[in-house]
Amino acid sequence: MGSILIKNGYIVTMNESLDTLYGDILIENDKIKKLESCIDSSEADVVISAKDKIVMPGFIQTHVHLCQTLFRNMANDLELMDWLNIIMPLESCHDSETAYISAKLAIAEMLRFGTTTINDMGTVGFADAAAQAVKDTGIRAQLGRTIMDSEWTPEYLRHDTEKGLQETEDFIKKWHNNPSCNITCGIPIRWVLNISDPSIIGVGEIARKYNIPIHTHANENIQECEVILQEKGMSTIEYFYKFGLMENKMQIAHCIWVSEQEKKIIKENNVSVLHCPSCNLKAASGIAPITEYLREGINISIGCDTAACNDNLDQFIEMKLAALMQKVNRGATSMPAQQTFALANIEGARALNLEKRIGSLEVGKQADIVILNRNLWSTPFHDHKIYSALIYSFNGRDVDTTIVNGKILVREGKVTGFDIHELVKDAEAAIKRVTERAIKKGLYRG
Amino acid sequence: MGSILIKNGYIVTMNESLDTLYGDILIENDKIKKLESCIDSSEADVVISAKDKIVMPGFIQTHVHLCQTLFRNMANDLELMDWLNIIMPLESCHDSETAYISAKLAIAEMLRFGTTTINDMGTVGFADAAAQAVKDTGIRAQLGRTIMDSEWTPEYLRHDTEKGLQETEDFIKKWHNNPSCNITCGIPIRWVLNISDPSIIGVGEIARKYNIPIHTHANENIQECEVILQEKGMSTIEYFYKFGLMENKMQIAHCIWVSEQEKKIIKENNVSVLHCPSCNLKAASGIAPITEYLREGINISIGCDTAACNDNLDQFIEMKLAALMQKVNRGATSMPAQQTFALANIEGARALNLEKRIGSLEVGKQADIVILNRNLWSTPFHDHKIYSALIYSFNGRDVDTTIVNGKILVREGKVTGFDIHELVKDAEAAIKRVTERAIKKGLYRG
Repeated sequence: MGSILIKNGYIVTMNESLDTLYGDILIENDKIKKLESCIDSSEADVVISAKDKIVMPGFIQTHVHLCQTLFRNMANDLELMDWLNIIMPLESCHDSETAYISAKLAIAEMLRFGTTTINDMGTVGFADAAAQAVKDTGIRAQLGRTIMDSEWTPEYLRHDTEKGLQETEDFIKKWHNNPSCNITCGIPIRWVLNISDPSIIGVGEIARKYNIPIHTHANENIQECEVILQEKGMSTIEYFYKFGLMENKMQIAHCIWVSEQEKKIIKENNVSVLHCPSCNLKAASGIAPITEYLREGINISIGCDTAACNDNLDQFIEMKLAALMQKVNRGATSMPAQQTFALANIEGARALNLEKRIGSLEVGKQADIVILNRNLWSTPFHDHKIYSALIYSFNGRDVDTTIVNGKILVREGKVTGFDIHELVKDAEAAIKRVTERAIKKGLYRG
Repeated sequence: MGSILIKNGYIVTMNESLDTLYGDILIENDKIKKLESCIDSSEADVVISAKDKIVMPGFIQTHVHLCQTLFRNMANDLELMDWLNIIMPLESCHDSETAYISAKLAIAEMLRFGTTTINDMGTVGFADAAAQAVKDTGIRAQLGRTIMDSEWTPEYLRHDTEKGLQETEDFIKKWHNNPSCNITCGIPIRWVLNISDPSIIGVGEIARKYNIPIHTHANENIQECEVILQEKGMSTIEYFYKFGLMENKMQIAHCIWVSEQEKKIIKENNVSVLHCPSCNLKAASGIAPITEYLREGINISIGCDTAACNDNLDQFIEMKLAALMQKVNRGATSMPAQQTFALANIEGARALNLEKRIGSLEVGKQADIVILNRNLWSTPFHDHKIYSALIYSFNGRDVDTTIVNGKILVREGKVTGFDIHELVKDAEAAIKRVTERAIKKGLYRG
């Protein structure tokens, strides 16, 4: 693969002592080999000038729905249940090719905006399509085949329990740490009411066998919590705890409406809370108690969730909203900029159990690096105010270069690995195909 | 000036019947001459292709602080009073040149991001510098000289009452409807406690004499409201009403903490509420009751307020936040996308009493027009979901072309009228000069 030297940047390391420096980074193959104030250009095959630019760890988005990217802007200004009633039927009408295109469209946008690692909720079926898109594009990802086998699951998405468990294990065998790509596996459970008790027991066994985490949604919406309490006699968090699903650092998106008892379970079981600001606001779900979670030492990371609600996949916006939401609720000094920025990189790495490999710029770590252009809208620039600038003034479109695992995937603001214009055309055709199928099946009114 | 034809765009008119169409717009001199599905290219001197692009009215930002743009990122994660204690002393240390550069930096960013009209709060002194920047750049603006003459005003900003009134009138005589530029005048009052009673009476007389509006801040912060009640025995809104300042559609920024009595005064006096989402969240001021104001038929418009708090001047972000803030507080169906979009253009025009001239794309109106690029992050594109796309997926950096009063000021994403690199250099030097002066005077600790 060779070596790349990033020269003369302002480097925001996010290492433990939060070092920032004007300097250089030498990448050899997939790893950071040196990070110093001056490295000789002769040491590298390729030199990238980062003069007047910012160099930072790539973003880690810990909760996304690749398969829903095609449904951008299709369901807006709706309560969560009304929104789901449009999006879930559409999701069931993918074919393997449209699922691939949807994933690739998401990944292209995220790479362009500086995201280098994602954690996908997946869908029923087509897990291989998402994995193929991850492999083809070069992004880093945690992926899995989603379980939805309960009677609560609409028929158009429901699958057989045995088949679900078998496909879950097959997917892990095929893709977990596969040397051809940057994939680790998780097991996505869509929602506590979407999974049968036998499947809960089954995925618990698979998770233990392969030492991989379970990824789910919980406590997003008040009405949702009430329905679950009625059905299960306890909350999602208590139910999954009872079944032993938290043994390997469970990843739970949202966690907005959480009792003291549930907070205790989250803390004691080292659960990661995956915070999704844009979607929580847009669906009027509420404002998660992030300030309190952080005070308790609970791991918080962020993600764009889904383009079908968000309708962007720009982690800069999520950082900004994560800070603004807490400030208006908890006071202007809450969620200071440096702490907020950490949620988007090193805390995301911790959520995925990858903090020894990614999330900060340090010698020996994988080379997942983003270079940002300074601009009119980040002027005047004060290096000692870098975190405020990153949260409030910079934006995904300022990304100049995105490097994942030592490979340059965006350069001068352009995705390098594939033709974006072709992808846009494919996406426009794909959404037509999905909606036509949905209309034919009586699942969508157009 | 000649004629410009914008060809083959998807036009979002924001006229009364909210027409959208694929078509062309012919600009002659400063006005829209034709808007039709097909206009022959031979009719124009210049043809701009808008194929696969969106054509919309330029944004109107009804509350900005041009002079504070230089203070971007300098005071973050602070309560409002602590923030003011950093920013106000810096503001007092401008010279005429730094005030000009600060205004030009703001205007460059706003033009680049699709804003064609602004309403500036101004500062004490240097009103001519802001006007000169508006004139030199070609943006449309309401401007004025700010009044701050009470004992409550810190000495470093306080001015003599007579001098303030004289300069206010002189500024209006010089700039109001001056044919060399696109300026109308307002009278900015910083804050009710910053203005003496004689000045209130004086500006009321000037406002009536020249038929121009008064622009102020009120009811932003709970503590602020309490202090004012203690000092004046009534609220800002009641105080200004008592003095007759509302006769010409007063413009009041924020209006977050407002009693039923104050709401009644706002409604009955046709006051415009200038909503500033980012700054209201960041300073933890609160969430203005925009849904209720709209239900009452009160005019609401939006603005970025100040780069010293925001720290962006991108109206797309304000639209998005205006919607998201209401949704999480008032439900997911509140602030639908079309209604939110109107706050950023036609409702802004109404706030400035310019709705007959700007704010929508209609034959006979001034040619204040923005063309947006479609992109990876607005794919798939659905023309019938245009308002959701504009609020949630597009962004300032998608602006391809900005036209003000028939003049092209941004083309292919680049500001055309002046050298941005020079401006950035000037801004970096200017902020050094201001902070050095502030340190020397003991007003800033660096």
